[in-house]
Amino acid sequence: MQELTERDFEHLSIGAAIMGAGGGGNPYIGKLRAWQLLKQGFQFRLMDPDEVPEAAVVVTVGRIGAPTVGIEKIVKGDESARAVERLEAYCRRKIDAVIPFEMGGSNSIEPMIAAARRGLPVIDGDGMGRAFPQIQMVTFFIYGHPPTPAALVDDKGNHVIFDGTRDAHWLERTVRNVVVHMGCGALLAQAPTPWRDLKPTAVLGTASLALRIGAALRDAQSRREDPVEAVLSITGGGVLLSGQIIDLERRTTQGFAKGTVTIRGGEKHKGQQMRIAFQNENLIAFLDGAVRAVVPDLICIVDADTGDPITTELLRYGFRVKVLGIPCDPLLQTPQALAVVGPRAFGYDLDYIPLAES
Amino acid sequence: MQELTERDFEHLSIGAAIMGAGGGGNPYIGKLRAWQLLKQGFQFRLMDPDEVPEAAVVVTVGRIGAPTVGIEKIVKGDESARAVERLEAYCRRKIDAVIPFEMGGSNSIEPMIAAARRGLPVIDGDGMGRAFPQIQMVTFFIYGHPPTPAALVDDKGNHVIFDGTRDAHWLERTVRNVVVHMGCGALLAQAPTPWRDLKPTAVLGTASLALRIGAALRDAQSRREDPVEAVLSITGGGVLLSGQIIDLERRTTQGFAKGTVTIRGGEKHKGQQMRIAFQNENLIAFLDGAVRAVVPDLICIVDADTGDPITTELLRYGFRVKVLGIPCDPLLQTPQALAVVGPRAFGYDLDYIPLAES
Repeated sequence: MQELTERDFEHLSIGAAIMGAGGGGNPYIGKLRAWQLLKQGFQFRLMDPDEVPEAAVVVTVGRIGAPTVGIEKIVKGDESARAVERLEAYCRRKIDAVIPFEMGGSNSIEPMIAAARRGLPVIDGDGMGRAFPQIQMVTFFIYGHPPTPAALVDDKGNHVIFDGTRDAHWLERTVRNVVVHMGCGALLAQAPTPWRDLKPTAVLGTASLALRIGAALRDAQSRREDPVEAVLSITGGGVLLSGQIIDLERRTTQGFAKGTVTIRGGEKHKGQQMRIAFQNENLIAFLDGAVRAVVPDLICIVDADTGDPITTELLRYGFRVKVLGIPCDPLLQTPQALAVVGPRAFGYDLDYIPLAES
Repeated sequence: MQELTERDFEHLSIGAAIMGAGGGGNPYIGKLRAWQLLKQGFQFRLMDPDEVPEAAVVVTVGRIGAPTVGIEKIVKGDESARAVERLEAYCRRKIDAVIPFEMGGSNSIEPMIAAARRGLPVIDGDGMGRAFPQIQMVTFFIYGHPPTPAALVDDKGNHVIFDGTRDAHWLERTVRNVVVHMGCGALLAQAPTPWRDLKPTAVLGTASLALRIGAALRDAQSRREDPVEAVLSITGGGVLLSGQIIDLERRTTQGFAKGTVTIRGGEKHKGQQMRIAFQNENLIAFLDGAVRAVVPDLICIVDADTGDPITTELLRYGFRVKVLGIPCDPLLQTPQALAVVGPRAFGYDLDYIPLAES
């Protein structure tokens, strides 16, 4: 068990924004909210997966909505904790721990806020090892756990409980529509499950990985070493392109931030051009028209100088960036997972090519 | 307390289709379902509003969706009873009686099916005294009762519970969207309330009114008397136009059946033309371009010969029809009600003119 400090949230917010592959929501506000709760005396307890009792009832928590909205419409603050509370009341079961459904951006911190407010530990792991835009893309549900009951809570005192279905695709479509009517941002707590059952389907150790990435990046920045190299030494993978954003098309539609960004290569990538398609997260990177990296592998855009991650809603024309390709967790590379999180699941007529082979 | 028979459901289905003002869903299937349950030994108990104990917890029940879909996608049958059961489980309160939220078409019978399956009585009354397309148009909610908690159930085993809001407009928008994802038809049970509180906001005696209308119509048919006059002698109001449908435009959009029907006058209405706009229910009748009748008053289209009501989803080019105008209940004529169910609430820039004055 590790108790998280102000400094940890600084590192976590950076590391999780890298692991978010452009999505998961902007981590800056999440960090400030965690800092405020620390000042108020709340405790953030990060629990090693092996420390969690086998019978502990675990719920997965996160924000649903378009990240573009998330930076303008700030949450009230207690929604995620209320979502856990509502789910607990509905199920009439005590909930013992919280696990993020994704390790990306603000959604790495939001479950910790829910847990801290409810006096619960958060488990070091998640359901993606990155961020993805849809509920059925969580490993827990890919590998067969029912995604309901689920409690969705907004900032206006509304809550909606979904139950009775094992179909995560149906839940995704339905929840997404309700979220649009909740103003494009709401908090979801779902799928209370004993840890012994959930654990084999979780990507483990991802919060501490995000903490290490963030610490390494800040450390390299202060030593004036290459921050990108510091990140890659922990995550694996490499720089796909270094250059400048020359075109950006982004729209908030059906509860998602969708678009494409085009980067013209500079320095040793002169003459090359990369186009990246995103849907909350970066999905596919085409280098001079050919696939260079593709989901579920991580495509991350970072500031060329500082190495700081840039989430899709903050991309801007003219930014000088580096595009990183980072291999995803093996749990996402099985045929069962690729059917849900591979390029075809996002509407692209191509097979997954692991980063190392493309 | 009256126990309803096969014959009663024949009469109720006709009377409620007239009171549905074109909406409420097709009553034919509802009647067949009630007949089947009668054969299986279920009891349908209609309770006089004055017999209901003051402390009895009452829920309002009905189908949400487009009537055009309702005639193609037949319910599984136990959805409304399951909605009551889910609401009871969620609230941890015993539910004592059911009241329809509208007295129109299949939605007059569906709550009786829910009640019969749960062994509960249904109260002789409803929340409209007719049918309307949206949840906020129920008198219970117009006059301040919270519309939640609400349980929405579909034919696939999904259920969704809405709670925490007093805003019936928000609930309407959100439920409607979920219903679209449930295939445009689902059953809602909502707003458990003690009868002493609900009663002053209910339109009372409407099930027995529908029974009387249906009985009078069938009686006149068998005696070869004028069935339309028989109906109007009970309801009040009059024939606005007699003629033939010469144009019909109808689409199923956003969970509603919307459109217009144009009727060319015959016999003593020769040279006149009526255009009726509908959204599940008939909303406004324009006679030669001028408003002749408008919501919340009832505009009903019936077969010119038999007097049998024709709901909006069954309108057809060439039908010979009579258009009836029937005054609505006084509970719908207050400024508070007209703000929600008057013509402006449906997007028409005109004031309500009571039928007698137009």
